[in-house]
Formats: sequence, structure tokens, C-alpha cells
Amino acid sequence: MKYEPLSGREFPRYSGIKTFFRLPHVSLNADYDVALVGVPYDGGVSYRPGARFAPTHVRQASSLGRGYHWSRAEHLWEKRKFADIGDCPTVPIHQEQTYARIENFFTSILKSKNKKFIAVGGDHSITLPILRSVSKKYGVLSLIHFDAHLDTYPAAWDCEYHHGTFLRHAVEENLVDPKNVLQIGLRGPLVGKDDLAFVKKYGMRSTTIDDIRKNGLESFIKTLPKFTGPTYITFDIDSLDPAFAPGTGTPVVGGLTTYEAQIILRSLQIKNLVGADVVEISPSYDHADITALAAVAVMFELMFFC
Amino acid sequence: MKYEPLSGREFPRYSGIKTFFRLPHVSLNADYDVALVGVPYDGGVSYRPGARFAPTHVRQASSLGRGYHWSRAEHLWEKRKFADIGDCPTVPIHQEQTYARIENFFTSILKSKNKKFIAVGGDHSITLPILRSVSKKYGVLSLIHFDAHLDTYPAAWDCEYHHGTFLRHAVEENLVDPKNVLQIGLRGPLVGKDDLAFVKKYGMRSTTIDDIRKNGLESFIKTLPKFTGPTYITFDIDSLDPAFAPGTGTPVVGGLTTYEAQIILRSLQIKNLVGADVVEISPSYDHADITALAAVAVMFELMFFC
Amino acid sequence: MKYEPLSGREFPRYSGIKTFFRLPHVSLNADYDVALVGVPYDGGVSYRPGARFAPTHVRQASSLGRGYHWSRAEHLWEKRKFADIGDCPTVPIHQEQTYARIENFFTSILKSKNKKFIAVGGDHSITLPILRSVSKKYGVLSLIHFDAHLDTYPAAWDCEYHHGTFLRHAVEENLVDPKNVLQIGLRGPLVGKDDLAFVKKYGMRSTTIDDIRKNGLESFIKTLPKFTGPTYITFDIDSLDPAFAPGTGTPVVGGLTTYEAQIILRSLQIKNLVGADVVEISPSYDHADITALAAVAVMFELMFFC
Amino acid sequence: MKYEPLSGREFPRYSGIKTFFRLPHVSLNADYDVALVGVPYDGGVSYRPGARFAPTHVRQASSLGRGYHWSRAEHLWEKRKFADIGDCPTVPIHQEQTYARIENFFTSILKSKNKKFIAVGGDHSITLPILRSVSKKYGVLSLIHFDAHLDTYPAAWDCEYHHGTFLRHAVEENLVDPKNVLQIGLRGPLVGKDDLAFVKKYGMRSTTIDDIRKNGLESFIKTLPKFTGPTYITFDIDSLDPAFAPGTGTPVVGGLTTYEAQIILRSLQIKNLVGADVVEISPSYDHADITALAAVAVMFELMFFC
Amino acid sequence: MKYEPLSGREFPRYSGIKTFFRLPHVSLNADYDVALVGVPYDGGVSYRPGARFAPTHVRQASSLGRGYHWSRAEHLWEKRKFADIGDCPTVPIHQEQTYARIENFFTSILKSKNKKFIAVGGDHSITLPILRSVSKKYGVLSLIHFDAHLDTYPAAWDCEYHHGTFLRHAVEENLVDPKNVLQIGLRGPLVGKDDLAFVKKYGMRSTTIDDIRKNGLESFIKTLPKFTGPTYITFDIDSLDPAFAPGTGTPVVGGLTTYEAQIILRSLQIKNLVGADVVEISPSYDHADITALAAVAVMFELMFFC
Amino acid sequence: MKYEPLSGREFPRYSGIKTFFRLPHVSLNADYDVALVGVPYDGGVSYRPGARFAPTHVRQASSLGRGYHWSRAEHLWEKRKFADIGDCPTVPIHQEQTYARIENFFTSILKSKNKKFIAVGGDHSITLPILRSVSKKYGVLSLIHFDAHLDTYPAAWDCEYHHGTFLRHAVEENLVDPKNVLQIGLRGPLVGKDDLAFVKKYGMRSTTIDDIRKNGLESFIKTLPKFTGPTYITFDIDSLDPAFAPGTGTPVVGGLTTYEAQIILRSLQIKNLVGADVVEISPSYDHADITALAAVAVMFELMFFC
Repeated sequence: MKYEPLSGREFPRYSGIKTFFRLPHVSLNADYDVALVGVPYDGGVSYRPGARFAPTHVRQASSLGRGYHWSRAEHLWEKRKFADIGDCPTVPIHQEQTYARIENFFTSILKSKNKKFIAVGGDHSITLPILRSVSKKYGVLSLIHFDAHLDTYPAAWDCEYHHGTFLRHAVEENLVDPKNVLQIGLRGPLVGKDDLAFVKKYGMRSTTIDDIRKNGLESFIKTLPKFTGPTYITFDIDSLDPAFAPGTGTPVVGGLTTYEAQIILRSLQIKNLVGADVVEISPSYDHADITALAAVAVMFELMFFC
Repeated sequence: MKYEPLSGREFPRYSGIKTFFRLPHVSLNADYDVALVGVPYDGGVSYRPGARFAPTHVRQASSLGRGYHWSRAEHLWEKRKFADIGDCPTVPIHQEQTYARIENFFTSILKSKNKKFIAVGGDHSITLPILRSVSKKYGVLSLIHFDAHLDTYPAAWDCEYHHGTFLRHAVEENLVDPKNVLQIGLRGPLVGKDDLAFVKKYGMRSTTIDDIRKNGLESFIKTLPKFTGPTYITFDIDSLDPAFAPGTGTPVVGGLTTYEAQIILRSLQIKNLVGADVVEISPSYDHADITALAAVAVMFELMFFC
Repeated sequence: MKYEPLSGREFPRYSGIKTFFRLPHVSLNADYDVALVGVPYDGGVSYRPGARFAPTHVRQASSLGRGYHWSRAEHLWEKRKFADIGDCPTVPIHQEQTYARIENFFTSILKSKNKKFIAVGGDHSITLPILRSVSKKYGVLSLIHFDAHLDTYPAAWDCEYHHGTFLRHAVEENLVDPKNVLQIGLRGPLVGKDDLAFVKKYGMRSTTIDDIRKNGLESFIKTLPKFTGPTYITFDIDSLDPAFAPGTGTPVVGGLTTYEAQIILRSLQIKNLVGADVVEISPSYDHADITALAAVAVMFELMFFC
Repeated sequence: MKYEPLSGREFPRYSGIKTFFRLPHVSLNADYDVALVGVPYDGGVSYRPGARFAPTHVRQASSLGRGYHWSRAEHLWEKRKFADIGDCPTVPIHQEQTYARIENFFTSILKSKNKKFIAVGGDHSITLPILRSVSKKYGVLSLIHFDAHLDTYPAAWDCEYHHGTFLRHAVEENLVDPKNVLQIGLRGPLVGKDDLAFVKKYGMRSTTIDDIRKNGLESFIKTLPKFTGPTYITFDIDSLDPAFAPGTGTPVVGGLTTYEAQIILRSLQIKNLVGADVVEISPSYDHADITALAAVAVMFELMFFC
Repeated sequence: MKYEPLSGREFPRYSGIKTFFRLPHVSLNADYDVALVGVPYDGGVSYRPGARFAPTHVRQASSLGRGYHWSRAEHLWEKRKFADIGDCPTVPIHQEQTYARIENFFTSILKSKNKKFIAVGGDHSITLPILRSVSKKYGVLSLIHFDAHLDTYPAAWDCEYHHGTFLRHAVEENLVDPKNVLQIGLRGPLVGKDDLAFVKKYGMRSTTIDDIRKNGLESFIKTLPKFTGPTYITFDIDSLDPAFAPGTGTPVVGGLTTYEAQIILRSLQIKNLVGADVVEISPSYDHADITALAAVAVMFELMFFC
Repeated sequence: MKYEPLSGREFPRYSGIKTFFRLPHVSLNADYDVALVGVPYDGGVSYRPGARFAPTHVRQASSLGRGYHWSRAEHLWEKRKFADIGDCPTVPIHQEQTYARIENFFTSILKSKNKKFIAVGGDHSITLPILRSVSKKYGVLSLIHFDAHLDTYPAAWDCEYHHGTFLRHAVEENLVDPKNVLQIGLRGPLVGKDDLAFVKKYGMRSTTIDDIRKNGLESFIKTLPKFTGPTYITFDIDSLDPAFAPGTGTPVVGGLTTYEAQIILRSLQIKNLVGADVVEISPSYDHADITALAAVAVMFELMFFC
């Protein structure tokens, strides 16, 4: 089994069955190092749905993906065995079942000692059950969280688990250590001042767009901590500005450029990335695939931490 | 209180707060005859979501609506007091709560002896709780059901209530009399032969596109029964061909033209229409509002039965 | 000067400066027989604007145009000298000036004894000043009017000249003979019964979609009168159903198919077509150019009457 | 009367009749502090029309609006009584009537001593009659003008009042004091050198993109004057780059990012904002609502000056 | 190996790696009965390109595909072993290489005595090399050809093999017997009368839209011959009207409805279908996937002949 | 002959036959100084096609073009005689013929001693035959190359001449001097380390986005060399970020803003620009014309070097 993209000599980039980065589609139990996997569930969104179609959309756009990182001077396919293991089972209209399926599925991946994964959502509510399975293996995690939103919001309509609460639960369930949470890309408006209470109470590092732009990107990067323990990255595509990522469910203007995201991702010092996800891509609002291409670029950076 | 559309003299059709047919936005308890009401819930869909945005989308398109029916030679605004009562409360990520809210809301409308309504979904799963409240008042109902799909399908993922089961439940809960069910616009493919078992068992009148086109529209119309008891019409926009209604969740080619739907609707003989809905309009897949305009045309025909 | 389309041998259909049917762009005074001409004015619309971009849009789509009519077995470029004379001068924000410019421009074309034209609007308000210049030369005209709307509506906001009044003025100004007006494609809903008063009063032949479909297209065609005097055709693209012509300003569902329009156009018996127009194409609502292609097909049929 | 947005507990953000920021729709004479109001007129545009649909489009996008400003640490709904008063009456095809209606309408709002407003156009020609009513009350105004264009252009086709002349007239009619005009976001190309004559002659402060970017945003902000007298802000969405605001009539590349606009707006020192508008949003060219969302973000900043 | 679609119980229709009809992706040499295969080449088009993306686009849309044919009362997955064998190798910028690869690839499929295939193009130029491999095995073929165009056109720019010449070459190379060619969906305009010379010379059965509509679909169907020898069907999606199939390269208005195509396909009497293709789907011009869904419906009918 | 844009007094910017910048359409042999010319060929692309429609698309968008450069304080139409000479002949499906036609065509332009041109592609493979004709006249050229990609890639599928090889061939054929090649906008990912071998071997100046952003735009500009010999500029629109130029064939995130491109172009010191092109605009992926408008802005800057 060669863990390499489909050969362009036979199959130009527009052709072939679409998998992430044109990599082999293998079963969960194959001997890959890093699984690329879709989690097509959007039952937790409060505004524009559609992220259920994101894995398909991102697989297609990733046909333009390549393996060599110019500034890192490293080559993905030489570094690790990456594979597409298809989608995690989900139930479109039943969150509890979906959560159970997600947790089981990722637990299965992580049974193999060194296997890692990068998941493509789905809305941000999928991150919680993933974190549950990751934490089961690795204990309390560090978390790097790119987002326009805090995602520590309270229950809505008595529903604890929507796309804006994953982080609150992850902290309350002791899956992540709030002292080792770094939030990037946050910006207002907020519903109210109370939105900030949770991150303040727990002492999270919640940085805003202003923090990044005030003194320039390089300065910002220098302020970032090192991550030495088991670390998870969750990248909500709405951390990017809608000009760069229109295809998302709850867009907020004044966000990151894709370039800023790339530079920040490249500068992160992470000793042990144990998993990652990219979420909230809503294809029916995308145009010319630019949101999907941004997601692919994020995946590319994430893959180098594996 | 004048139950008339916003005056075009002051506010051209592109202007003003958007309500159905530019009618007054009143409270549930106002003294209208017929409520136009949105039910923005799409948590029951199995493929393309987005019908939660349909009430907004249809309100906009209905700005082009007018009151006089050329072939009926009747005028809506002179006939009945129509009003927009806004949207029924819903919960995007909790079906049970949504069902309860829908049933309560429509029960409240129907408390007034003669009040009727035309609802705009939402996916087809909203029809069941509506029928529950209607049947509570009127007993077992006759049903006219426009759809590409049978909607008598079994549970999926142990979920009884998705957008393809409303009719099975309506029959099983004795809300509608299967002998007085007329289905129009059905067509394949089906998952299997068993899909037809339910309608056969209950002796429903399930007509297909072929039934309409084989001998011509006029012939088909002549075969239709009269509806003398309390009758409900549910119009799934996917009964129309995707050329006429691209903006829907599970489109099926080979469907009705909008004209055929208009003619069939005009020919129906219904003594007592007690309520109606138009469902499964998915705006992010619509183009130039043509699906919404088709929905508005359907509403227009339905309003003459009130 | 060869009045032939740009050679595809040198310039494939996607290439070259875009003119109608890839014909030479000549000055108003050149020795063509039939001018194809744009009238990019949409200041008379009451809903969706954008028809000002229609001449450009239709020129592009007409790159797929060809010269030979299969059922007529005739060839356009062998029959007459057709040319693109560019656009009529207009003023986007001043109707009176625009009307004067249109009337002057078309009067200039018609100075040459045998010159004819096919105009591409613009909204339907452009037809009135064109008719004024045509009638100046030919006297009272016969008119064939394809439209979803009657266009005999009253003034709106004290504005006599909007896109729904051209026909009323044409009758009142004695430009067309109401007894020799044939309307095709009409359908409701209407604002009120009074909408029909004008056509009834003047005894116009106002046929509806029902008239066409009731007994079939062939029967309908047989009922159509012959046109022996100087005749003008105005084709509002919204006579077509929105499935066939989404790119228009005030779409009405339940309309003609493009095929029906083609067959009716082919069946018309016109001894002396003195001019024609195709109006109300709104490109920003078109998709895959299908509305523009319908307009090109209509132009193609019209050209054979010249 | 509570001047608060519709409760999300009953009506998720995708639901309900669409008003600006989901605020109550009240009559012009209600006791709000600040009116949010649409002015749907685009009869003054010279290129892409469609801004007539902007109030509807922005109302929808504003469903994602919230009340708390993170960097200001202030809450809109606690600060002032904001309400949606619907649209100003307009006439699509008659500028003079529209101007009269706009002036009357805004004069009516301003009759109440402390009432303010934020208007959503419409094209930029609507700003002149608004300024007339504002100046009637407050005298000569200071003006902050975001735009890619100077809008001091001469008459076109003998039409004095098009979307590129509002500022020239405002100065000539002595509605604004040219010494207290600040233009932000300007950039070429221009028709000719003479385009600059007016602003030079009157000594306006006309800053370009280069002025903002040369020494960085912070430096630029420091150069800005304080506004102590009655001040009006007009924000042409085309001051933003087309990547951030594609949905506009005459886009110019090389413009502001939404973030730059936000930061500049936040830094403005205005003692007495008496009114504001956001104009030139053309929905049929928008994508994924990103232009509308930018407009909502601008409104949000403007509301804090009220 | 089960030749059945992915189970919806685990993977709802929006999820999973996209293959045709969610069938297993197997190698060319697997023991399927009928291969579904993409041929992503569009180097032969003269106008809108993009058909290279059609296999991906159709695979996605085919997620809505099901197995049971209502009017045939037959079930695909019980009838034959269908599988997706991926795409045929192609070279985007070299026709000769592509033709060789296509011919080799299909020859390989046909090596197994009973294997059949349904190919999804690609532009219509791909049909020629496919026919070469099919004819190598089966001798001179009968051909049923759905198209708006004759595809017997001469070379263009000295290029013999473009998307409008496959049939001329197929006849000239004796791959198909012109007496057993049936063309369906043809319509004008044509470049000239000579366009018809080829089909007349060879006595092909070239039926037009008029032939279908003149006396009604049922009458037309009765005139169709039976196909007793080895038969190939090529379905150019532009045989459908642009309202039903906007996503194509050279759309022609006045075409078939999808329903007409379905009925004609169902009525064909073919003893031995040896292969088939669906071509000219251009995804970047498709909307809401309606063209792809039409292609899936055509594939569904074709699969029942296998 | 006046080499000035169409007068807006008669023909508003949305009207008239579309030429580049509304300039006169003249023959290749007219006495213009600088030809604006389309080269509509996209047969060399490996992913998204469609650049064949770019000349038409850019001509349309250039209607918003103006002549006066604010920061240069110069006026194009007073400086040189610019004209649109239409499109270069091409063959959609035959690269060799197209290359011959392009080389002939540009050689014909350059026969006149001082004539220059700005070409609008087409994909990047068109630059090679253009460079051949330019080099024939001027000898070895300096080259400024804006691109996301190196375009020094090896043959693909034994095809030497695709859209990623023009620069390798230009160097190998000694058309450009690698020491005088400046590449701007480059960024990863790459297929492999070897991608960089060619530019390293030849000592090209290949600058990346990081080079531009690390120390700021002004610093970067200061590092740029002067161009004293005959110089050619080729601008691949994908040097811009997909947010600014979605309409392209192989988009790469993390690219230039249009403003950065403008500033760099303005800062270039070129003594003798002998020709230029703008390539890889793919209209069917453009939105609201923003990519075309970026291309027009690039052309505008290029025209000042002529």
C-alpha cells in the first residue's frame, strides 16, 4: 500500500474518485499514520446549515493539494502515511446518536497507539465528542482554537450541545485545561458582556483580531505560548474574514486573512499534536470553492504537526 | 384594521418590511380569517437542508403577489381577511420541542372557530404536528398531498419523525383517513418495492406523473374525487420538476410543471379546506427566486379555498 | 461589405468582439436591410432592474446563433443584409430624454425606405417611443404582443410611462389599431378586475396561456388571424415561464415554454413586419445564459419575417 | 414597548419577520431614539442598478446582528431605543418625486427634538435630500464621507442629481461645510484631472487609500480631526474593496478592508452625530451576503455614535 | 464483495466518498457486470468547456439515486452487479493520447465476455474512441443518439476529431450502421442546409423535436424501430432543453423535457445494449445540480438495458 | 480617427459594443500606438478551463475603466493611441495551430516599429508564442512575472507546452534572460523540492509572498531591480488571492491583494516595456466581475508603461 496521491500522469487533478488530497481511501483499520476523515453533521447550527456537505466539497477542492511545503522545506508524503478513511457515521436528525457515533469512531482510530487524525466537519458541535475520545486516551488536553466566536455560550432552548458550546463543555468535562487554551481570531459583536464571563473565569487566553493587528503579525506570534503536552487544534473557518471564507454558517466580518492564518499556524510550537479539525464550511454559500481551498490550506498546515 | 396589502402608491413592490403578499403583520390573536404563517424548521431533512430560510424567502418573492384570479374572477382581499402572523416558534436543533411548539401554535390559531391558515415550511416533517392540531379540532381529515415522494417511509436511524414519514404517522395516528388521501406528482425511483406497501395496504389514491400525462391533464382532472369533509392540502414543492423548482432538498426529475400544478389546484373540488401548507423550499439552491415564485403561486391558489 | 457573421475558421464562437449573431458592426447609415440594435434602458421598471445590460448579454449569447432555419429551409444571411448597428443612445436616469433619443434614433433608421430593425431592450417602456417612430412612417400598426402582462395598466405615481403602460399609450396615441392587436402568453394574477377593462373596451385579442393549452398548440395556432398591414412584434421575455427565462424583471409562473413560443412565431402569417423588439431580459438574474439564449431564438424567428 | 430584538428563545435568528437587527417595526411617530430606515431608490445609478433591494437584503443579514461592542464594552439596546421604522416612500421611476418624499420623510423624523436615524439606501443620490432635511434642522453640517468616488462630479446628460453628485450639491446648497468634510477611501482611476478641481477649490479633506496604507492605519487615524458640530456620516459600501463588498454598483478595486473601516469608524471623535446612511449595496451582485454583512457591521459602529 | 450502494443506515446520502450511485469503487478487473465509469475529457469542445468535471459532479448528484424502477417494477441491485470503476485515464491537452487511452481502457473492460459499461463524459468527442473499442468486439453497431446536434459535422480548423464529428467518423469508420442509427432531439438552427447532407446520404433516422411533439409522445414512440443487434446509446445532455439542463457546453433552446427523455428511454426496445454514455454536462454552468440530476436519471434508465 | 473611449454622453457605460476600455475597435494595421488584444485560448490548462471567455469578460468589465491615474497624475488617452484590435485567431482544440497563429499575429503587430500591445489571455500557455514574436524583434528580454506558480514545470503527459511551462521554455529558447527575470507572488505548496531546481539553476529572482509581507510592502519595493533593456510583463491573475480573484483556473490561497499588486506595478522602474499580458482569468468562476475588474486595474497600470 502506497500512501501517495493518485498519480497525475494517469489521472489529471480533475479526475478520479475524490478523496482528501487524492490519497488512498482505506479502512479505519489500515496502517496509516494520519487519518483524514469527514464528519458530516450540521444538526447543531443555529443559522445557515449545510456543513454536512463540507467533507465532499473539501475533498474535491483538495485535488489541487500538493505535498511540499516551501517554507518548511518538508514533504508530507515522505513524512507520514496519510490516508482518507472516509466519513464518520452520523445521523442527520439525531444529535445524541451522532455524538455516540463520533465518539466511538474516533476512539476506534485512536486505539492504535500512534494514529492521529484530521477531521473535516460538520459544524462546531462535532468537536466535543471528538475531544471526548481524544481525552480518553491522552488525558486533559491543550487546545488551540481558531474562531470568530468564543464557543463558550450557554445552552439555547435547553439544548446544551449546539455549535456554540463545545468549548464550555470541553472545559466543564475536564477534557481541556483552560489554562492551556489559546483562542485566535475572536471578534465582536457579542450578545452581551456576559459572553466573556466564562473565558475570564477560567483564565483562557482569548486573543482578538485587534491583538493580532495592533502591533503586527510578527509581534503577535512572539507572544504565543509553546504547547508541550498533548494538544488539539480546532479551526473554525469563520475565523477567516467572509471575503476569504464566504461559505460558512455564521460569518463575522473583520476576520483573519488566509495568509495570517497560514503564518500563525506555521509559527505554532506544538510538541505533540494529537488531533485536529476544520469545521463550519458551508458549501452552498461558497463561491469558486474559495472557502474549501482555504480549508485545504489549513489542513495542509495541520498535517505538518502530525 | 384593513386586511389589504401595503399600498404600492407609497411603497413600490420592492420596498417595505417583507410579509406574505405585503399583508399586515398581526398577532396570532387578531381578527383575521386566514393566517399566513411560516414554520422555519428543517431539522428533519436527510439531504440538502435550508428550508428554515424558506418563510423569509417566500415572503420576499410574494411582493409580486396580487389579489385577482383571472380564471376564477374573484379577488382575495375582498373575499377574506388574510394576514401574516409571522413565524411559528421553533428550535433548530430539537425536534421534539419543535413539534410541541408547532402543535401548540396551530392549536392556538384554531381556537377561533373559523380561523384557517396556510403554512410555509420548513421541511415536510412539520406537517405532522400541524395535522395533529387540525385533527384535534376537525377529527379525521381528508388529505390532498402533492409530492414527488410517498412520505410513508419507515423510521430512519431509529428516528420516527423525519421529512419522509409524516403521512405514515398521520395515518397511523388516525389524523387522516387513508381512503380520503389523494397523492399527486409521485414518481420514482424508489428504494424498493416495499416503499409501496403502505399506500397499497391502506388503499390510498396515489397517482403518478404518468397518470397525469398519459391521457392529458383534462382527463386526469376528471378522475379526481370531490372532497366533502374537512380537508387539508400539503404541497411539497418537489412535486414540481427541478426545472421549475430547483430550490428544494431532494429534487426528483420528471416532475410537474408549475402550470400543471396550477390547473390541478384550480380543478379541485373541496367543500371545506381547513388548512394547508407549502413545504421543502430550500432557498440557497433557488435561482432568480423561481422556486419561491412557484410557492407563491401555489399559496395563491390555496387561498381561494379558504 | 459582407453582411455575414465573423468567420469561425479564424475566430471560434467564443472569440471576437461581441455583436449580435457575430455580424458586422456598422453605422446607422450603412446599407444593411435589417438593423439589430440594442436599447439599454431600464428606468421604467417597477421591480427588478437590470435590463440595461441585456443588449450586451444577448450579444454574447448570440455567438451560438446560426443562419439556417431547419423547418423553414431558409438561410438568413442569404436572404437579407443583417447588421449590428450598436446601441441606441439612452440616458439612464432621465426617461424623457431617453424617449426622445429612442424616437430620433429609430426615425433615422426608418428614413431609408426599406430598412427594418429588431431591437433588444431594455424594459418594456422602450417600445412606446419605438412605435411612435414606426407609426410616423407606416401609420396605424397591427401589433403582436407576447407578454405575461397586459401592459395597458394605468399611470403609477403619476408616471404615465412605465414598463406596464406602453400598449395603453400606443392605443391612445393611435399608433396601433386595437382591433389588430394580438396578445399572447397572458396570465394572472391581476391587481383587480379593472385590469381587463382596457383590452375589453378596445376589443383587443388578448389570449391567455389557458387558450393555448386547453385544446393544444395546433388548435390555438389555427385560431390566429393573418396580419396584412404593417405589423410590429414586441416580445416580452416574461411571456416565457421562469423555468425557461429566469432572467427577467417581473417573472410570472405558468408561462410559455420556449418551444411553444417558437412554434407560434413560426406559424404567424405576417405580410409586412416593419419592426420588432425583445425586451425585459435582466441578466443579473439569468443563469447559464438560458434567458439570453431564449431571446436569441426569438430574434432568429423574428429575422425571418424581415 | 420594548426596544429590543426579537427573542431568540422563541424565534431563532433565521426566523421571524425581517427588520433591522430584529428590532420592533414601529411607526415613524413612535418614541424611539434612533430610527433604522430603508430608502430603496436606485434611479440615480449610472451602471449596475439594484440598490432598491438593499434595505430588504440588509434587514435579512442583520439577523446575525448583536448588541454588545467588545472593544467599546457598551451595549446598544441598553444605550438607546433603536427601532425599524420601515422604508421611506419612494417612486422608482421619478427622481423629483422621490427626492420630495425623502426630504419630507426625514423632516418628519427630525421633528422630534432628539430623534436620530441611520438610513440604508438606495444609491448615493438619496443622501442629498436627506442632508436637506437634516440641515434644515441643524444648519451647516460636518460630513464624514466613506467612498471610492469623490461624488463631486458634474451633471451627466443634463441630469444634476445622479449618484455621483450628492456632495457637490450639498456644498453648493450650503448643507455641509467643505472645511469640515472628511473623505475616506478615495482612489482612482478618475475620468480626468478636473475631477479633483472641486475638492481642491473647496479645501476638502480628501484622503485616499494610499494615505491610509502608507504609514499604517494607526498613523492615519491620528491625523483625523475631531468633529464638534452637528455631523453626518455617509458610508458608500464601495469604499470597501470588491473582495469585501462585491455587491455594489460601481466597484473599484484596491479599496478598504472591512476591518480598516471598522477601526476608522471606531476611532472617529464625533460629538454630535445627527444622522447617517449606508448606501450603494446592490444585492443581485452580492454573494453569501458578505456585502450585506459588511453593511450591518458599519451600521453597528454608526449606532454607537447615536 | 457486495455490489450494493453504501448503507444509508451508517452513511446518510450526503456522506461518504462519492461514487456513482454510492456503489463500491472497484478495479477494472473486478467481477462486476456493469461498470459505471467517468471519462473526464473536454478538449474537443468548441464553446463552453468544463465537462472534464462532469464525472465528479454526477457522482455527487447520484447520491440521491435509488434502485427500484416504479414503472418497470424492477430493482437494479438485484438484477446486475453494478460498480464504479473510477475514471478512464485522459490527458487534458492532448487529444490523440486521450483517444488512445480511452480506446485501451474500454477495450480492457470489454475483454471480459459479458461486461458492459455506462460512461459519463466528457464532451461528445469521447464517444468515438469508445465506439472503436466496442465495435472491435461486437462488429458494426446500432446506435441510438440523443442530441440537439447532428454531430456529423465536417472537420473544423483541420481538426477531424471535435465534439461535433463523432457520428460522421463512426459511420465512416464503419463502427455503426447508418441504417440502424436513430437520432432523437435534433433541432435547429443549423449552419446551413449542407449540415443535413450527411444524414440524408446515409439514410439515418434523424428525428426532430417537432417529430416528437407534433402528434404527441405516444405516437412518436410507436414509430420507433426495434433494435435487435448490438446497440449503443449515446445521450448528449443538450438534447434536453436548457431549462432542464442548463449545465452544458452548447445549449439549444426548444429541447426535450427530462420526462420526455425518460419516457422515450423506457419505450426503447433493445435486445442487446452493449454500452452507453452520457456526455456534455458542464458543471460550472449547472445550477442546484439539476443538470447532473437529469444525467443521473438518464443513467438510471440506461442501467435497466444492461 | 480619435483614439478615445466611446462618449458617455451618448452611450452610458453599460451600453455600446464592448471593447477594451470602450476604445475604438480597429484593424491590426491601424495607426494606434498600443494594441489591446484578446488571446482566447485555454487548451493548455490542467484544471479549471474557461479562460477562452476572458477577453469578452474583461472587455465588459473594462466599461468602468477611466483614463486618469491619480497618483501618476497622467492621462492615458492623452499619452498614447490605445485601441482594441479584437482577438488573435486561435483554434480551441489544436495547440500547435494556435501557437502558430499567435506567433504570426503578434509578429504582425510588431512589424510597425513602435507598436506595443497588452494581451488578455487565455491561459498562461499563450505567453510563450507571444514571447517568441517579441524576442524575434527585441532579442533576449527581461521579464517581470506575477504568478502564484513558478511556471518552470516539466512536461506533463509528454506535453511540453502547458500552462505551467511557459517560463521554462522561454528560458531554454533564450527568449528571456533568466538573470533578468523577476517573479512576484509565488507561494506553495509545491509538488516537490525539485520544483525549485530550475529557478535556482538559472539564478532567477523568485520572490514569494513572504518576501513581500515580512518587512512590509515599501521595503520589498526597494529591493526590486531596475529594468533597462526591453522588458515584458506577464501577469497571471492567480498571483492575487482567491478572495480578490476567484475567477481563475488553479487558485492558490495566501496571495496578493489587488492593492499590493497595484503598488508594486506602480513602483516598477522599466525603461522599455515592449509588451505585456494578463492571463488565467476564468469567467465562469468569477463573481460580480471582481476578477475581471482586478484584471482591468492591472491593464490600467500596464498601459502607463507603454
